[in-house]
Amino acid sequence: MKIYFVTTNDGKYEEVKKMLPEHDIIRKNMTYPEIQADGLEEVAKFGMDFLSKKLDGNIMLEDSGLFVQSLNGFPGVYSAYVFKSIGNDGILKLMEGVEDRRAYFKSVIAFYDGEVRFFEGICKGVISETKKGGNGFGYDPIFIPEGETKTFGEMEREEKNEYSHRGKAILKLKKFLESF
Amino acid sequence: MKIYFVTTNDGKYEEVKKMLPEHDIIRKNMTYPEIQADGLEEVAKFGMDFLSKKLDGNIMLEDSGLFVQSLNGFPGVYSAYVFKSIGNDGILKLMEGVEDRRAYFKSVIAFYDGEVRFFEGICKGVISETKKGGNGFGYDPIFIPEGETKTFGEMEREEKNEYSHRGKAILKLKKFLESF
Repeated sequence: MKIYFVTTNDGKYEEVKKMLPEHDIIRKNMTYPEIQADGLEEVAKFGMDFLSKKLDGNIMLEDSGLFVQSLNGFPGVYSAYVFKSIGNDGILKLMEGVEDRRAYFKSVIAFYDGEVRFFEGICKGVISETKKGGNGFGYDPIFIPEGETKTFGEMEREEKNEYSHRGKAILKLKKFLESF
Repeated sequence: MKIYFVTTNDGKYEEVKKMLPEHDIIRKNMTYPEIQADGLEEVAKFGMDFLSKKLDGNIMLEDSGLFVQSLNGFPGVYSAYVFKSIGNDGILKLMEGVEDRRAYFKSVIAFYDGEVRFFEGICKGVISETKKGGNGFGYDPIFIPEGETKTFGEMEREEKNEYSHRGKAILKLKKFLESF
């Protein structure tokens, strides 16, 4: 199936293309309005409503965020902005002396084929005490997935992909597309 | 002049109505999409583009935020969300040990009368070391305006209004409206 994947992120495009080799994934390097909302689905839905008026065909987009339990879900849907402004050091400072370090990464894919469908993936874990590792990007150096002792920043790509929230969301989309 | 002021905030409506007694300010208690962006103007412009298709007549909306220098402008246009999630305690924690405590409140009014115009007001100050005072709302207890020793949270409404970023933006709009 021919699918337009709208993203400005090279890494995301490569990951999706690799996991859906049976489909024709065409990258659209364009932006869409991201609204301020509590949930990723809402942001994805608004973006897709915009894109489905601009593009003709099947469309997908992906949005993800880090949700820290003791910070009431902060930075959540604003993860990209928060990373740019206060970064990993800011999150670690907010977590100083905090015992409950639970957090999760969540990814939501919106897929449009006449109507909008959502596929989500979650990776549970904890916020580390310090930054560790230089791999990955964003919050990877401060996130330790469940059952691990290393941060995402300390893992090779293959190892990280086993846990990947985005990978899980892509797999759900893959399964859905098989039903056609 | 008859102006629709779109806001869900009672306090904002009262402030605007009080400062523009020569105009017929009609409250529209409706919401509009707020996008994720670096600047308040961009958020206001997107919201107004949406509203000007829904309402017939002159329209205004107001958006404001707290911008902390040493946090690269955080929480900025996401002030409302950040307040809900990590609150004043979160900001104070991020500012622990930080010498440069400069910050400013900024308000942007978008006014539509066939085209969109912007009016802004800024109130400079510093982030206090601790929360002080129970007046006002939001970040008022941790913000000390320039030339003062008290936080907004420790001031009476009249005193605070002297410094108000929103008041300054409203005055600029008022002046503009006089030119008609």
